[in-house]
Amino acid sequence: MECIKNRRTIRKYKQQEVPASLLNGLLEEAFRASTMGNMQLYSVVVTRDEEMKKKLAPAHFNQPMVVEAPVVLTFCADFNRFSKWCRCRHAEPGYDNFLSFMNAATDALLVTQNFCTLAEEKGLGICFLGTTIYNPDPIIELLRLPELVIPVATITVGYPDESPIQPDRLPIEGLLHEETYCDYTPEDIDRIYAYKESLPENQHFIEINAKETLAQIFTDIRYKKTDNEYMSESLMRTLERQGF
Amino acid sequence: MECIKNRRTIRKYKQQEVPASLLNGLLEEAFRASTMGNMQLYSVVVTRDEEMKKKLAPAHFNQPMVVEAPVVLTFCADFNRFSKWCRCRHAEPGYDNFLSFMNAATDALLVTQNFCTLAEEKGLGICFLGTTIYNPDPIIELLRLPELVIPVATITVGYPDESPIQPDRLPIEGLLHEETYCDYTPEDIDRIYAYKESLPENQHFIEINAKETLAQIFTDIRYKKTDNEYMSESLMRTLERQGF
Repeated sequence: MECIKNRRTIRKYKQQEVPASLLNGLLEEAFRASTMGNMQLYSVVVTRDEEMKKKLAPAHFNQPMVVEAPVVLTFCADFNRFSKWCRCRHAEPGYDNFLSFMNAATDALLVTQNFCTLAEEKGLGICFLGTTIYNPDPIIELLRLPELVIPVATITVGYPDESPIQPDRLPIEGLLHEETYCDYTPEDIDRIYAYKESLPENQHFIEINAKETLAQIFTDIRYKKTDNEYMSESLMRTLERQGF
Repeated sequence: MECIKNRRTIRKYKQQEVPASLLNGLLEEAFRASTMGNMQLYSVVVTRDEEMKKKLAPAHFNQPMVVEAPVVLTFCADFNRFSKWCRCRHAEPGYDNFLSFMNAATDALLVTQNFCTLAEEKGLGICFLGTTIYNPDPIIELLRLPELVIPVATITVGYPDESPIQPDRLPIEGLLHEETYCDYTPEDIDRIYAYKESLPENQHFIEINAKETLAQIFTDIRYKKTDNEYMSESLMRTLERQGF
């Protein structure tokens, strides 16, 4: 499928609206994704308002796409609607636990990817913001998410105003295992990461950051242990506060 | 996109192999999904061996697809490969925490949905087994998953040997929120769930289970509080044991 094979993340968008009818049609199709027991444990919050985008931006470390994209979508794991239905129907819901959060997050992420594919097939560009679970509290407050609702993915959407080169991927044999997981020897690691490490842009990153290896860019700058541990604690507190 | 719009879960498959070249080509395309910092925090274990399928089946509550499908794919959140790369490159990985698990699970689930779309577009049928995170321990043992690897989704794959009716979905206005989350009143709940509750098959479920409402089928039979809490505890212990 060309739209998946040739896809690339789009961070710059034209000043062109994405009609609500198009967006809603794509979301409706996306909701055809597999869902746990057909419970549809997700909600999507649509942000078009300029002020709201400006308020959301800091939660996403002020990445410019949040303000510049015509539409920002926040996909949420949602056990609130289902639990409310249960209570309205003389049934006592039991979904205030970690497993239920994971079920809802799974449902929400499958729908997110489905939406991205459908949007790209229609010529839209998207950027997946992984920052959503780094900083859920301000998002929860701004979007007024009730108990049992947690944002798990944010997508910026618009018509592309750039055509970036396609990023590298690891060779498929580095990601696939036949029958059982075949753990990686240092030689496997060398082979799997050779192409990525050979890329001029990655060598340039090492140089400008005065590091010895590309891996150090990840561990020392981009995704640091102390940051991860701090955000882990905070995410767990958020899950608890939202009732999971 | 017709393959998404018209999709339905397939649980019965023809006795026809899925060639490895086709499967690997689809996975390679699926790996084009968005991934956190281009780290590709997932692995896929392919099961074709009859004995392995029989051993995996109990972990999936013996759903017959696991043994009957020509291929079973287990999509795993994987920080093992990336951490090994770091250690081979004089970089100290800091990914043994909950946030990193969520990052890897997100990567794995986006790839899972991408694979499902691509497979369905090629005429294959899939079934998403939500049981994977209910019972990860035997899967971890059978597939020999090392530390920092957790199975998050299992997909059975094959050529369809049934054409089931398409299940209902909630109306889109029940899932979308403009700018902020608009919490549901009892009247909203009535409206959103009206169609689902009106379906003869759902009324039949209520009758044969001697329940008063459809919601009670979920809370009292299919997804019970006590089961969810038991499996939550067990999933959290598994995360800890696998090093997250």
